[in-house]
Amino acid sequence: MKTVRVELGERSYPVYVGDRLLGRSDLFEPHINGRQIMVVTNDRVAPLYLTKTVSGIDKARIESVVLPDGEEHKSLTVLNCIFDALLERRCGRDTTIVALGGGVVGDMAGFAAACYQRGVPFLQVPTTLLAQVDSSVGGKTGVNHALGKNMIGAFHQPACVVADIDTLATLDERELRAGLAEVIKYGLIGDSEFFEWLEGHVDALLGRDPESLTHAICRSCENKAKLVSADEREAGSRALLNLGHTFGHAIETGLGYGTWLHGEAVAAGMCQAADLSARLGCLDRDAVARIEKLLSGVGLPVRAPLELEPERMLELMSVDKKIRNASMRLVLLRAIGDAFITDSIDSDDLNATLTTIRGAA
Amino acid sequence: MKTVRVELGERSYPVYVGDRLLGRSDLFEPHINGRQIMVVTNDRVAPLYLTKTVSGIDKARIESVVLPDGEEHKSLTVLNCIFDALLERRCGRDTTIVALGGGVVGDMAGFAAACYQRGVPFLQVPTTLLAQVDSSVGGKTGVNHALGKNMIGAFHQPACVVADIDTLATLDERELRAGLAEVIKYGLIGDSEFFEWLEGHVDALLGRDPESLTHAICRSCENKAKLVSADEREAGSRALLNLGHTFGHAIETGLGYGTWLHGEAVAAGMCQAADLSARLGCLDRDAVARIEKLLSGVGLPVRAPLELEPERMLELMSVDKKIRNASMRLVLLRAIGDAFITDSIDSDDLNATLTTIRGAA
Repeated sequence: MKTVRVELGERSYPVYVGDRLLGRSDLFEPHINGRQIMVVTNDRVAPLYLTKTVSGIDKARIESVVLPDGEEHKSLTVLNCIFDALLERRCGRDTTIVALGGGVVGDMAGFAAACYQRGVPFLQVPTTLLAQVDSSVGGKTGVNHALGKNMIGAFHQPACVVADIDTLATLDERELRAGLAEVIKYGLIGDSEFFEWLEGHVDALLGRDPESLTHAICRSCENKAKLVSADEREAGSRALLNLGHTFGHAIETGLGYGTWLHGEAVAAGMCQAADLSARLGCLDRDAVARIEKLLSGVGLPVRAPLELEPERMLELMSVDKKIRNASMRLVLLRAIGDAFITDSIDSDDLNATLTTIRGAA
Repeated sequence: MKTVRVELGERSYPVYVGDRLLGRSDLFEPHINGRQIMVVTNDRVAPLYLTKTVSGIDKARIESVVLPDGEEHKSLTVLNCIFDALLERRCGRDTTIVALGGGVVGDMAGFAAACYQRGVPFLQVPTTLLAQVDSSVGGKTGVNHALGKNMIGAFHQPACVVADIDTLATLDERELRAGLAEVIKYGLIGDSEFFEWLEGHVDALLGRDPESLTHAICRSCENKAKLVSADEREAGSRALLNLGHTFGHAIETGLGYGTWLHGEAVAAGMCQAADLSARLGCLDRDAVARIEKLLSGVGLPVRAPLELEPERMLELMSVDKKIRNASMRLVLLRAIGDAFITDSIDSDDLNATLTTIRGAA
């Protein structure tokens, strides 16, 4: 087992990465506050891992609530099911919530923890690659609104993250590929050495080689932890983590949540960001080609879906919350491993990207 | 105009109390971040004060959303109407929310501000006595759940509070009396001199004498500010502000939100707390009589409603969030002006209070 630490003063916490971690009371119990636990999970993960996860925990009464699986259920309505469960079982202020599942479960359980009785502690137990490398770390929690992704939420840091790579054995091939989009993102933002390593380990990662997966998860979490520690509430540099996300969120919202997986939309979005960077003269075309090659090698889309017109994409992007005072703010690239934030984007260039990086690659 | 300051480090803010404050851009504009304002108000307050409130503001585009009035509408469903409005009008991360109305509007608008895009600033413009002396100060925001009051929420401090006493001219008699319950609460918790002053100014306050109202509001806010500054997130002493509230919330939830006003329920709850304090031998019966006399002099209930059985009250109180690990925690009195928190309560005494302080006084 390896441990990555997210340094945030009194809100610092460990991310444990390794195998056979579920059920290890030495990892879980020190982070449980009070005598009651509410495990929030979904109908796919519960039969596989619920019993195992809590098997070692003696110090608390264990309750659980099982949500429907999928991004389309990440809503205020489903969030309220968590509050129903907490109140029906008379969970007090010192209940600890455990998020067991992928990014949707983690975001909703974390947001429920942020709001229940104005805040209770929670643990992240991510069971998808995407959640292990990205959404479970950093304290962003929330739900979607019909008009925009993650528009309702809170910053609420977990007490710890337990990323057991054994849970990836049961992950859909498609979910595994989608998770790799966020892994590749870290290479693009600030770690060119990691990007190169990824170029050489596509087969190992798709083959679920434990050592390669552990390395990819740890390195991703280290990169994320560094950015989160420097800027917890995204006043500045943390926004680099949104590379490909303004495009990606527009794809997800435009197609309807759950049609494309988040990682798939981010993959296409990163290709759009790379193309726009090249149009603005920041990034050379060889780098764009390398990025597309790695993403398509992993089996991810490198173009936005044909059914979304460029005008519609632009409209959806302008609702995205990365926008301040109506000027569009995007993350672009100077090189592989060197991302930057800008709000001076020529609309002709943006339109050209939206028109070109669309449809079959 | 008088100014009370809530000291919370970088989250400190002023509470302005006085007449002719609505429309004063010198008070509002320094606290407005960005170029967009969303005023959240209700259908009773909007026709009276919406235009006036924003009349002096030039630096921002002004939008508004009008909610139905009443505690029964303080729900996740109505909260979502605020998010709908914010997204439909493309409000970005640097929008400032203005809560114009009573406690329900303030709690919901503040919670919307806490959650919208993971947090935007907001201003409190309370138009009821209860909101001016209590709910607008201290950063508690949230909504009710069918199974418990204020169960879903966040701590989110306003950028400032503008309490214009002119708005009290249009307040229902019943709402005015309900607000005085919270005013009297501050005397009971820690300010016996204020309690005495109140005993001598019942007629002036009910007659809406501006000078008396200003004094009562400032003194209440000073008392509240002191407790909030010492313990922002209610880890300890701030809980004193819950005097009468565990009983009161049970009354509100049990009767259905909106049947009794919050202040009415708190008045009866404070009589129950006083009676229980006397049963436990902490408080003398003369003090109990003085408390009941002042509350009934103001026209407030001093008994819980007959239709709520003691067993039902107890059940509802045990859901209330002041409970940690299933032991009931209550605020009781040693004297007028000397409240304390305890979780060692004899259940026979509590039952005796619930049975006795009920029905017609």
